[in-house]
Amino acid sequence: MSVDINSISSESEPLTVKSNSNNELKEDPIKCNGYWYTLLSKVLPCLHWMPKYNWKYLQCDVIAGITVGLTVIPQGLAYAQIAGLPVQYGLYTAFMGGFVYCILGTSKDVTLGPTAIMSLLVHEYGNKDPIQAVLLTLLGGCIQLAMGIFRLGFIMRYLSVPVVSGFTSAAAITIGFGQVKHILGVKTTSSEFIPEVIETFRNIPQANVWDILVGLSCIALLLLLKLANRTTTVYATDRKWQCIAKRFMWLVSTGRNAIIVISAAAIAFAIHSQHIKSCRVPDCLTLTGNITKGLPPFKPPEFTEKVGNTTVSTGTLVSRIGVGLAVVPLMGFLESIAIGKAFARKSDYNLDINQEMIAIGVANIFSSFVSSYTITGSFSRTAINYQSNVKTPAGGVFTGFLVILGLALLTQTFYFIPKAALAAVIISAVIFMIDFATIRRLWQVNKIDLIPLAVTFLVCFWEIPYGIIAGVVLSLLLLLYPVSFPRIQVTTVSSIADVHDNKQCLVVLVHSGLDYPSAEFVYNKVNKEASANHGVVSSVILDFQHVSNFDYTVAQMMEELSEDLKRMDMQLIVISAYDYVRNILVRVAEPGSIEFYKDLDEARSVGRL
Amino acid sequence: MSVDINSISSESEPLTVKSNSNNELKEDPIKCNGYWYTLLSKVLPCLHWMPKYNWKYLQCDVIAGITVGLTVIPQGLAYAQIAGLPVQYGLYTAFMGGFVYCILGTSKDVTLGPTAIMSLLVHEYGNKDPIQAVLLTLLGGCIQLAMGIFRLGFIMRYLSVPVVSGFTSAAAITIGFGQVKHILGVKTTSSEFIPEVIETFRNIPQANVWDILVGLSCIALLLLLKLANRTTTVYATDRKWQCIAKRFMWLVSTGRNAIIVISAAAIAFAIHSQHIKSCRVPDCLTLTGNITKGLPPFKPPEFTEKVGNTTVSTGTLVSRIGVGLAVVPLMGFLESIAIGKAFARKSDYNLDINQEMIAIGVANIFSSFVSSYTITGSFSRTAINYQSNVKTPAGGVFTGFLVILGLALLTQTFYFIPKAALAAVIISAVIFMIDFATIRRLWQVNKIDLIPLAVTFLVCFWEIPYGIIAGVVLSLLLLLYPVSFPRIQVTTVSSIADVHDNKQCLVVLVHSGLDYPSAEFVYNKVNKEASANHGVVSSVILDFQHVSNFDYTVAQMMEELSEDLKRMDMQLIVISAYDYVRNILVRVAEPGSIEFYKDLDEARSVGRL
Repeated sequence: MSVDINSISSESEPLTVKSNSNNELKEDPIKCNGYWYTLLSKVLPCLHWMPKYNWKYLQCDVIAGITVGLTVIPQGLAYAQIAGLPVQYGLYTAFMGGFVYCILGTSKDVTLGPTAIMSLLVHEYGNKDPIQAVLLTLLGGCIQLAMGIFRLGFIMRYLSVPVVSGFTSAAAITIGFGQVKHILGVKTTSSEFIPEVIETFRNIPQANVWDILVGLSCIALLLLLKLANRTTTVYATDRKWQCIAKRFMWLVSTGRNAIIVISAAAIAFAIHSQHIKSCRVPDCLTLTGNITKGLPPFKPPEFTEKVGNTTVSTGTLVSRIGVGLAVVPLMGFLESIAIGKAFARKSDYNLDINQEMIAIGVANIFSSFVSSYTITGSFSRTAINYQSNVKTPAGGVFTGFLVILGLALLTQTFYFIPKAALAAVIISAVIFMIDFATIRRLWQVNKIDLIPLAVTFLVCFWEIPYGIIAGVVLSLLLLLYPVSFPRIQVTTVSSIADVHDNKQCLVVLVHSGLDYPSAEFVYNKVNKEASANHGVVSSVILDFQHVSNFDYTVAQMMEELSEDLKRMDMQLIVISAYDYVRNILVRVAEPGSIEFYKDLDEARSVGRL
Repeated sequence: MSVDINSISSESEPLTVKSNSNNELKEDPIKCNGYWYTLLSKVLPCLHWMPKYNWKYLQCDVIAGITVGLTVIPQGLAYAQIAGLPVQYGLYTAFMGGFVYCILGTSKDVTLGPTAIMSLLVHEYGNKDPIQAVLLTLLGGCIQLAMGIFRLGFIMRYLSVPVVSGFTSAAAITIGFGQVKHILGVKTTSSEFIPEVIETFRNIPQANVWDILVGLSCIALLLLLKLANRTTTVYATDRKWQCIAKRFMWLVSTGRNAIIVISAAAIAFAIHSQHIKSCRVPDCLTLTGNITKGLPPFKPPEFTEKVGNTTVSTGTLVSRIGVGLAVVPLMGFLESIAIGKAFARKSDYNLDINQEMIAIGVANIFSSFVSSYTITGSFSRTAINYQSNVKTPAGGVFTGFLVILGLALLTQTFYFIPKAALAAVIISAVIFMIDFATIRRLWQVNKIDLIPLAVTFLVCFWEIPYGIIAGVVLSLLLLLYPVSFPRIQVTTVSSIADVHDNKQCLVVLVHSGLDYPSAEFVYNKVNKEASANHGVVSSVILDFQHVSNFDYTVAQMMEELSEDLKRMDMQLIVISAYDYVRNILVRVAEPGSIEFYKDLDEARSVGRL
């Protein structure tokens, strides 16, 4: 294994290693390219790196792929629990993404699969019904594909940082608290946040000591292993041993989910085979239990569902998914593209956002053929992939094969995985998703941005889409505030045109664009200032140097303003206007009612100041 | 009658006459004022003019009030037809507004009462049910009052000129076409626009020749009389006779609605009393028919309704009104305040918008006690009031008394008014509401503003509130476009810092504020320009002189941008930033990653350019 051990840094250390694989490819265009090849490689980005693929790349990709695979298997089992689906669906969701993304993806690091937030959304819109969840995968994938083809990626920009941060934090708390019942070993019936919290607390007296014991110790160990990598000081004097020790710690830390889940299952199995009387598994420890064996069949998703004797139609299924058809694809994008961009920046390559949308869409469409719920980019696994020094998107293929292997051979052993251990995997992952950093920064930097954050955060506990919509709408309203009340600065300038008269000019500097919501405000403000200086001021000069937006409503207001000023024996003058603004004004206003000059000096030179 | 005849201009001539009544009041504050009086006069604006009221004012107000009254009686009967209510409700709606506005209003010209657009809205939300319509008046009035008290008048500014224009034109066509069936003398069952048009056309074979005859000749006469005033050339040589002829034409033109309706009713009565065999009224000519006699009772509106044996609860009634509770008060305001502002400008006085909202709200609340549907300012009658040289809001009191007189004495004679004549009154009024002028102007000035106009116009035929909402949302989206894609200008400036190096600087001038939707666009743009000049450019200078808005998302983008540039060996420099923008950036960015200078010269002086 020729992997450069120094290039593997911990998850928490600043990731300064630069993979130059993509850079190389950029600088050295493929030799075998003709016109058609170039065209084809736009649709299939894999054609960029495949001709250059070599033995060294393969080694790196295999190692990274397997490392990610060891993470996705326990995560998949756990996330299926969040999605309210049988645990095997977590693994069904974990392999197809890597295969498709290998061909269509533009980032070497991004790994598609089940994620905590998407699982939460699938829980909300999948109604804990595998058929509905898989249909959502297909339809959401089609929507993502269409958005990619029609280049609608720009919609994402209306999700501001505070809204995304508020949503992520709320999702983390919802997900985390949703697992507390598994740690306690109690059952709840509610699926909404507040009732579930109440019910969970009310059920504490029925808590299972063994579940609590397993759950808490798993959480403690997971956090310890996460920290281990960061804090390890290696006392070995030999540089080689130091490196090996460092790498071992990294492996243990990265593979901690697998280690903990396997250990917990092994202990459960051991207790079970000993037939210890005081604690008969599975009576006292809640286990995952029997799950469907083997690989999912490869077949199109079902469009109707049989419940007892009646058939639920496609229309009914789709209407049950409802607004999920918008929320799920959009949030899927958002997660995946945010991650892709972050790692593209680290590795210094460009991410084609619209191609990414196509890749995720197609990945979801194919995934729906293997009974997967909706997939998207996973932050934790993408980080592991990157740190494992992955070279190309082919890493995902090896991850996929490992998951398939697990499904084919290991499904029976999943019986012994304690539910509390899976809950521990989730909890120890999501507590770091609560975004204190952004809240602290906004507090220091721009407190007004905390409002959409807080609103998104709070409303998300009620309904996630409402939370996001509320945040977006509120952000847009905050955007409207300066549009409605533009900053205006009024100064008085002595007129030198007529020294005897000692007349003055009012100079009104508008600091931003003027759009129709600001018309009345500006009109009132200028009118008020002019009235206050009635008799003293001979002209009102509007300095439009910052006014790049303008519309008919504002132009009409200006025309009315010029009439009002004329009644007070004042002339309305506009200086430093963009041509575009001036053209509108000239066409709307009566000829001569508004005078235009390049700047104050020009107005002065013609005796207007 | 000491009215200055010259001050009466036609509706279509530019109204240049200046009433100085309010100016006088402004310049000569009431003598009897103490602290309490001043305070009280803020709540009751009538206290401003009442102490100064004199015999001359009274003469003017009586004449104006009666002139308006002669217009509102036929209009009221006709508009009730639009509102889908028995005709007497049009008169119930016509008197209380004047009494209340006299005490609370701040414009001498505005006359409250039934209007075509409000009648259309009442038709939509009143369900042709008087009880529901009157309840809507009360609730709408309470909402208007609350909005006035809480000073929410600013909401109006989000209705841009194109949206209002689109709505008005669509309403005019809807109202106008809704009357075609009365002209044809056919009945239709649909209340929606498109089906009604189809049904009306389908029913043409059943059209009543007498109704068509009356309707068309009424329309022709009304238009002729409207034009008469404009085109009359008086051949009288004597100046006095010229004046009298002019005044007579003005009176005939202004009172045309009353003249036509009375004439049509008289003819119908004549035919009826002659018992002409071939045309027995009311068999062949559709008449208004029997209506409830006398004045409406003064009593609180009913909150429940008896339909057969069942009682419809308040909740059900309110839920039937639904979104009308928002649309009706808002559109009421919009109409009234637009009119008030236009005439305040003509007469050179100030309109207190929030006090106006209170006045309209209270007027509606009181009106609901006399079975009125929702009232608002009427453009046509306000113009007549203004042209009749009204001096104070007391004119409305005389209008009110005339309407009450009509209700008390004339209700029986209304039996003979042909429905086609009322339809003619409406049609000849609304055809001038189709706003070709704004469309033409927008086409010349700012074609993009035609989009919200067209959308509002078209969607209003489906549902008026949807049309307005669509227009407002689209206008806001158009507002978002420059926010999302700010104008950016990139120039290259030779660096003089190092002559041997011959390095250059990229100067990026941002023409408007930067808000979160623009972050990605700016990031991509600058990054692309920088990459294109890799190796040639040593620093990227962002000129922020026009950037007055800024938020955390943009600051974070700038931080990422500075990292990207550093990787290309470029320094990010910001010049001419507002302090506010600079403070945010300093807190978000790594120390030293962004350099700040006052302007290009300062950057040059420290060797950065």
